[in-house]
Amino acid sequence: MNPGAEAKVYFVGAGPGDPELLTVKAHSLIGRGDVILHDDLVSAPIISLAGTNARVVNVGKRCGAKAITQEEINRLMISFAQRGMDVVRLKGGDPSIFGRLGEEITALADAGIAFEVVPGITAAVAAAARLATPLTDRRSSSKILIVSGHRACGTERGGEKEWAKLIAEDTTLVVYMPGSDLSGLSRRLIEAGTSPEIPSIVVSNVSAPQEQQLMTTLDGLFCAPVNASPSILLIGWALRGAKAHEFIENEFCRVPVY
Amino acid sequence: MNPGAEAKVYFVGAGPGDPELLTVKAHSLIGRGDVILHDDLVSAPIISLAGTNARVVNVGKRCGAKAITQEEINRLMISFAQRGMDVVRLKGGDPSIFGRLGEEITALADAGIAFEVVPGITAAVAAAARLATPLTDRRSSSKILIVSGHRACGTERGGEKEWAKLIAEDTTLVVYMPGSDLSGLSRRLIEAGTSPEIPSIVVSNVSAPQEQQLMTTLDGLFCAPVNASPSILLIGWALRGAKAHEFIENEFCRVPVY
Repeated sequence: MNPGAEAKVYFVGAGPGDPELLTVKAHSLIGRGDVILHDDLVSAPIISLAGTNARVVNVGKRCGAKAITQEEINRLMISFAQRGMDVVRLKGGDPSIFGRLGEEITALADAGIAFEVVPGITAAVAAAARLATPLTDRRSSSKILIVSGHRACGTERGGEKEWAKLIAEDTTLVVYMPGSDLSGLSRRLIEAGTSPEIPSIVVSNVSAPQEQQLMTTLDGLFCAPVNASPSILLIGWALRGAKAHEFIENEFCRVPVY
Repeated sequence: MNPGAEAKVYFVGAGPGDPELLTVKAHSLIGRGDVILHDDLVSAPIISLAGTNARVVNVGKRCGAKAITQEEINRLMISFAQRGMDVVRLKGGDPSIFGRLGEEITALADAGIAFEVVPGITAAVAAAARLATPLTDRRSSSKILIVSGHRACGTERGGEKEWAKLIAEDTTLVVYMPGSDLSGLSRRLIEAGTSPEIPSIVVSNVSAPQEQQLMTTLDGLFCAPVNASPSILLIGWALRGAKAHEFIENEFCRVPVY
């Protein structure tokens, strides 16, 4: 708290989970913030970096599990800032990607509250680093398409046919929150013309001690075990040399022909 | 240097330029590495974090300006590591995106050298943070397509027609190294059916003191002044509320009809 200066809301990317993957700036802001409003996806070791006098509030909106609305989060940010407290709004990964940043910024701007955005390591590059693989490769892949499997809480799917057109040959497809129905996604992409042989990797809990990595091919996803969320799915030829902990051979695990 | 242990090569993302946007892990590795092999794009304040006894080598391959080849870079990494020195291979942004990581990893794996990848803040999210804008927005944009304007050194362009199909309505297009011919890109995207009204922003030297931000519409790019490289171009409806330093009104700056 700094009564002489105007309070500010900092939208801070918490990265994938490992505190060492915070930016230097994020690390310092988390330690200094008067209030930490964090999503469910932010890891406990990162939350523990908050100052001993900081007010720490979990404003996570897990599907159905919590009743906090976006409007309530907006109200909390505004009311703390209006009381002169610096607020760290801590979001998993990077705030600009699938983080509802736009809606929260609109609310602050309407209320005349100052804010700043501090980027974070997003899951796509964190997973690539853990797998020691590039996402683009001059030899095969020149584009990256980032999509979200879930638009809302498990209600809506789709888009796979459209993605299939895009990943044709030289695009790495990254699906955030792919959900548990990887067989359906695999089938729809193959039906839409994507090669069944394309390397496909699921990483859950990227960079955390309980991280899991599963590498297979697109048709091998058909029998990939459902991973604990949060997870991320990467599909593309650039991943060919990735080093994953587990592999599924796709010899006996093919997508049925529909 | 640690004679008891095996030397390692760390591929480290240097982020966009501001040392505060290094990860905590990258910051510590740069300070500890025996050798720092860095690209041209890595900023001076970050290079100055190297230890006083570290050997610092610029292995940047600016178009035509330097004679160092990819093979020479590979040889340098391998020979330092074989002499027991920990090597930090420092790349602008994130190593997995347009960083030739695949080729360098292949060379190390062939030589039996241990390596690890440490992610960095890539320009897309760094620029979004500086502009206080999301790259996705539930209200308009559910996908991000990341492409590179230059495949090689200024020799090859193209792909714009294909990108135009992809950014249709709900995709944010991010062009790394868009080059100086933004009018051509603008024209080709509009010819391919992209709305001329779509918000378009060029940011150069993201996060550095000399950063420049220019916001306009897709047809306004036609008269955008050429920015100093390195720059990044963002196009999409999610950017509607971005706060840029400079604006170009497109009233008097339309793409000629071809």
